[in-house]
Amino acid sequence: MGTASSYDDLLQRVQFGADGLVPVIARDVADGEVLMLAYMNRDTLEQTLRTRLMTYWSRSRGEVWVKGATSGHYQHVLAARVDCDADALLFDVRQDGGAACHTGRRSCFFEEVPLETASAP
Amino acid sequence: MGTASSYDDLLQRVQFGADGLVPVIARDVADGEVLMLAYMNRDTLEQTLRTRLMTYWSRSRGEVWVKGATSGHYQHVLAARVDCDADALLFDVRQDGGAACHTGRRSCFFEEVPLETASAP
Repeated sequence: MGTASSYDDLLQRVQFGADGLVPVIARDVADGEVLMLAYMNRDTLEQTLRTRLMTYWSRSRGEVWVKGATSGHYQHVLAARVDCDADALLFDVRQDGGAACHTGRRSCFFEEVPLETASAP
Repeated sequence: MGTASSYDDLLQRVQFGADGLVPVIARDVADGEVLMLAYMNRDTLEQTLRTRLMTYWSRSRGEVWVKGATSGHYQHVLAARVDCDADALLFDVRQDGGAACHTGRRSCFFEEVPLETASAP
């Protein structure tokens, strides 16, 4: 068990990168499945903690991205964790609609790389 | 089920950031616990797939980081996945020594942020 951090303390301690972003993992609270990895800036992290809805910074669109605002597939925040270096976050979420991925799949990590096909060095 | 990718195909398709790095999630194959998030460049990704030992690029030290080389807590690769945008990776690993974190804890995400202490907007 780690030291409990307040919400404001977290916002101060998180190490955002040179681009102002921190990587965030969203995990399904139902069974721990990793759903996606995306990014937040300080404002969208604050908005996420306040609204309890996962709110990312879309790097491709350059805008605030309330996950589910278009698709209805909101991610409701049930728990938040910060890593030992405070430069990555892990959220337990309840995923609406059964799909985090824009392809309609549950997880964005649906493509397995068959290791057995690795070429010899 | 996604389209199967060969190892060489993966190395070509992964989108590395402006800093040449891609974020990587290591997950314990035993129960799916998220252990850590770190980074790989193209060379350490290739080394990881070839050696089946998680090999990161240490941003703080600016060097190749074979996880476990110092601590003995190697991470053995059992599966690799790429996300829908090919800009994040998820590895299932067998974690030696029962701890991924340099603090001796199993996961680097040991610190929970108590949401109930969130201040009102």
